[in-house]
Amino acid sequence: MNLLYCLRRAEQFHGSSVASYSGDTAFTWAEFSRRVHRAAAFFRDLGIRKNDRVAVWMLNSHEYLEIYYASLIAGIIVVPLNTRWHENDAAFALADSESCALILDDAFSPPSASLPALRRIIYAGRRACPAGMIPYGYSDTGHCFDEPSPEDTVGLFYTSGTTGGPKGVILSHANLWANTMNMALALSVGQTRGAWLHAAPMFHLADLGALHSITASGATHAYLPSFQSEAFLQIVERFRVTETLLVPTMLSLVLNHPSFARYDLSSLQTIAYGASPMPLPLIEEAMSRLPHARFHQGYGMTETSPLLTALDHENHSGPTVTSAGRPVLGVEVRIVDGEDRDVPTGHSGEVIARGANVMQGYWKRPEITAHVLRGGWMHTGDIGRFDENGFVTILDRAKDMIKPGSENVYSPEVESMIAAHPAVLEAAVIGVPDPKWGEAIRAVVSLRPSAALSEADLILWCRGRMTHFKCPTSVVFLDALPKSGTGKIQKNVLRELYGR
Amino acid sequence: MNLLYCLRRAEQFHGSSVASYSGDTAFTWAEFSRRVHRAAAFFRDLGIRKNDRVAVWMLNSHEYLEIYYASLIAGIIVVPLNTRWHENDAAFALADSESCALILDDAFSPPSASLPALRRIIYAGRRACPAGMIPYGYSDTGHCFDEPSPEDTVGLFYTSGTTGGPKGVILSHANLWANTMNMALALSVGQTRGAWLHAAPMFHLADLGALHSITASGATHAYLPSFQSEAFLQIVERFRVTETLLVPTMLSLVLNHPSFARYDLSSLQTIAYGASPMPLPLIEEAMSRLPHARFHQGYGMTETSPLLTALDHENHSGPTVTSAGRPVLGVEVRIVDGEDRDVPTGHSGEVIARGANVMQGYWKRPEITAHVLRGGWMHTGDIGRFDENGFVTILDRAKDMIKPGSENVYSPEVESMIAAHPAVLEAAVIGVPDPKWGEAIRAVVSLRPSAALSEADLILWCRGRMTHFKCPTSVVFLDALPKSGTGKIQKNVLRELYGR
Repeated sequence: MNLLYCLRRAEQFHGSSVASYSGDTAFTWAEFSRRVHRAAAFFRDLGIRKNDRVAVWMLNSHEYLEIYYASLIAGIIVVPLNTRWHENDAAFALADSESCALILDDAFSPPSASLPALRRIIYAGRRACPAGMIPYGYSDTGHCFDEPSPEDTVGLFYTSGTTGGPKGVILSHANLWANTMNMALALSVGQTRGAWLHAAPMFHLADLGALHSITASGATHAYLPSFQSEAFLQIVERFRVTETLLVPTMLSLVLNHPSFARYDLSSLQTIAYGASPMPLPLIEEAMSRLPHARFHQGYGMTETSPLLTALDHENHSGPTVTSAGRPVLGVEVRIVDGEDRDVPTGHSGEVIARGANVMQGYWKRPEITAHVLRGGWMHTGDIGRFDENGFVTILDRAKDMIKPGSENVYSPEVESMIAAHPAVLEAAVIGVPDPKWGEAIRAVVSLRPSAALSEADLILWCRGRMTHFKCPTSVVFLDALPKSGTGKIQKNVLRELYGR
Repeated sequence: MNLLYCLRRAEQFHGSSVASYSGDTAFTWAEFSRRVHRAAAFFRDLGIRKNDRVAVWMLNSHEYLEIYYASLIAGIIVVPLNTRWHENDAAFALADSESCALILDDAFSPPSASLPALRRIIYAGRRACPAGMIPYGYSDTGHCFDEPSPEDTVGLFYTSGTTGGPKGVILSHANLWANTMNMALALSVGQTRGAWLHAAPMFHLADLGALHSITASGATHAYLPSFQSEAFLQIVERFRVTETLLVPTMLSLVLNHPSFARYDLSSLQTIAYGASPMPLPLIEEAMSRLPHARFHQGYGMTETSPLLTALDHENHSGPTVTSAGRPVLGVEVRIVDGEDRDVPTGHSGEVIARGANVMQGYWKRPEITAHVLRGGWMHTGDIGRFDENGFVTILDRAKDMIKPGSENVYSPEVESMIAAHPAVLEAAVIGVPDPKWGEAIRAVVSLRPSAALSEADLILWCRGRMTHFKCPTSVVFLDALPKSGTGKIQKNVLRELYGR
C-alpha cells in the first residue's frame, strides 16, 4: 500500500466532488489529480529525480497539498520546514537534508547561508516571481513515474525530538499508511465525507498525518494559511467545515473570540486535538459551546507518524478526560523503567511504542536512531502511567519535570490547575533554582481580556487546591505565551527568559 | 505487525476480563494467554515445528480459539477444514497440505484414506480420548518461540475459489492484520468491547477474519458449535452478546423462529452479514425487529482475507441497500473487461482487487496463482458494476449467470424478487436447458411454515413484477435448500439435481 492509493480512490469515486479550495477557485478531484500529475512532470522537467530532497517552506495552502502529492508521484522526498523557524534553522535543515530545491510562498525568503546543494528556488506565491526564482508550474511532458513501493521514503520531518538537537525523521509510505488507518479508526478522521480545514500547520504530522484519509474519503481540503481565530470562524462557516485538528491553544483562542457566537459552526462534526495537554476547563467549555462536535484527543510524535494513543469522545467525561486515552489499535505501547522493564499499573515510566507507524530512523543519525529504537521500540522520552483500564496519562517530558526538594512535580498537573482559574487564559510552569529546595516552581501566565489577578492571589488560590509543594512560588504575567509553529507553548523560551 | 499483537493487547489492558466461555467456564484474558502458550508448548513437545501444517476439523468452540492462537505462537500453519465436508474432501486437503497432525472434536472422525504425512491425530473433544489418538493438552516445558514476522504464513484456507477445484489459500500475518484494520473500520467489528458470538463457522474467513479485532478489544468470545436458531437466541440472551456475523440464511432462520419474541436480544449492537446476497425483504424485516442493532454488510472472499466492500448501516435505506457497498479503506477495487481495462460506471465487468489483504497465493498452485493475481490484482471471478457513488452491485459469479435467449440474467435479482413473496422462505434460481431459448430459469424454493403456493401462482406473481425473460418458467419446491458449511445455498447441488 502506498499513499497514492488515497488519491486514486478520490479520483475513482469522487472525481466530480470538490477536492480543494484555492481562494475562490474550487478544484474537483479529477482536476486535482491532473494538476498534481502535471506538477510532478514539472519537477521532473527541472531535473529533480526520485529520492532527491525538496524542501517546502510555505504556509497552509492549496499549493502545499499539490506539491505534496506531486512529490509522492515523482518519488521526491519532501522536507517540510517549520513555519516559525528562523532562517538559520531552515538553513540547517536544508544543508542537513542536502535539499536540491526549496519551494517558497510569499511568507518566506531563501536563507542567506551558502547552501551548495540547493540549486533551485521555486516560487509558489501569489505575486510576480522574484528574480532568480523559478515559478512553480505544471508540465505536459509525458513522464512515466514508477508506482512508489511501501518502503519508499515520503519525507524528512525535522524535529528536535527527544534528544540530540534537530534531525530529520524518515517516514515511509508504509509508516504514514499505517497511521492513516490508525487515525481513521481512533480519531474518526476522514469519516464525515465533508470538508477538512487545515488549521494546524501542514508541515506538522498532526495535520499531515490526517490528510490521507481525508483525501481517500473524497472530502474537501480547506486551508487557514496561519492560525487566526476569526479567519477560522469565517472559513468553518463559509465552507461548512465538518472536521479539523486543533492544538489546545487554538481552541482556546477560538472560544474566546468576541465574535464566536456570530458564526454558524454547526457543520463541525469531528474535532481532533492534540500536540499538548488540554486543560480540563477548556475542553469542558469547548464541548458545551460546540455541542454538535465530537472531540477526539490524539497523543503522538513525529517519529510515530504521529498517533500513539487516543481519547475518544465517549471518554470525555469522568476521570479519563485528563488522560491521553488508550493505545490505538495498530500501535503497541508500554511504560517501562530505565532498563525497559514494564512498570506496574499506576506507576510512571517512559512511554515506548512499536508498530508499522514507527519511523525508519533519523536522517544521517545512525547512532541516535539505534539508541531511540533500541530493542525494536521507539523510546518517546515522555513520562506516563497506565491506569487499570489502559488509559495513559502523559505526565511530562522526562526533562520537563520540576523537582522541589525530593518530590517529582509533573508540570501538566500544575498547569491544568492554574488554567482552571477564571482569570487565566494560558499557563505554563517552569523550574527556577532555589537555594533551599534545589528547584522552585514558577508560573508563567497570560490573563483573559480585561481580567485582573495578582501574583499573591494566584499562589493563594493554588494552595487552596493543591499539595503545597506543587504550587508555584512566583508568577510572571505575559500578554501572550511564546508558541512554536505547531502552537505549543515554547517552554525552552520561557526557561531561558524566566528560568533563572 | 503480527496477529499476536491482538492477544498481547487483550492481556495487557483486559487481563481480568472474560476472554472466552467454554461451556459454563469463563477464562480471563490472563488465563487464556497462559493456556495458549502452554498449548503451543504441547504442540512443540509433540515434535510439531514452525511451518508444519496442522489441520483442524472442529465445530466452533473455545478449544478452536485456543488451538488457533497456540498455532500462531508456535508458528504452526493451521489448516481449518470445512465442517460440512465429506471425509473425502478432508482427505484431499490433508494430503494436499501435507498436514502432519489433525485435530478433531466429537463431531468428526479421521478420514479412512491413507495419509502418510499425517502422523498424529489429536483429540480435542469432551469425551474419553479414542484409542490411537493423542489427547489435546497443555505443557509447562519452557519453549522459547520466535515472534512471528508479518510475512509468516498463518494458515491454508481451502476454497473452491473461482477456478480449478479446491486449493489452499495462503494467508500471512500481514494479510490478516490488514483485514483486521479494514474490518474494524468498515464493519465496526471489535468496537463494542462486549461479547462476540461465533455463529458462522470459525473455519471460514468471515468469522476468522473478524476474531482478531475482537481479541484486541478485550471483548469476550462466545460460541455456537453449529448454527441452530434457538441456540443462537439463547446464547445472545445469556451472554449479552453485543456483536456477531451472520450469513443471510442464519438471519432468516433466527427471525422466523417461533420463540424469537421470547428472548431478550437488546444487547445486540452490531450485526455484520455477508457471504451471500441478502434479499431486500429480509434485511428490512431484520432492521425493524432488531432496532437496537446496526447492520453492516461485507462482501469478500477467502483470497482477500476476506473483506473487499462494505455497506454500512447508514446506507441500509434507499437504492443502495441491495448493493454490496463501497470498497473499504485499505482495498483498491476495479471493475474491468476481459483485458483488465476499466469498464465505464454502470457497466458490468469482473471485480478485481489489490491491497495488503490479498493472499500470498494458492498452496502448491503457482500457475493458478499467477493467473488469478495477474498484473498484481486479485481476479475475483465475480461480476459487478459500480454506480456513480462508488457502490458496487455484485451481479453474480461469472459462471452463475443464466442466459435465456441473448439476455444476461443475474440470479440475485430474480432471487430477491421471489424471496419477497410472503409465502417464500428461501429461493434460488438455476438455468435449465431450453430447446427454444438455450436456457430457461428454474426457481428452487422453500416455503414458510404452513404457507402454501403453487408453481403457476409464483410464476404469475413474478410476471406481474419483473421483465418477462427474468421470470422463472418452472418451480421446484423443497422443504429446505441444501447449504454449504458457511450457510450458502449450494447451487452446484441444485444444478446437479434439478438443472436438467
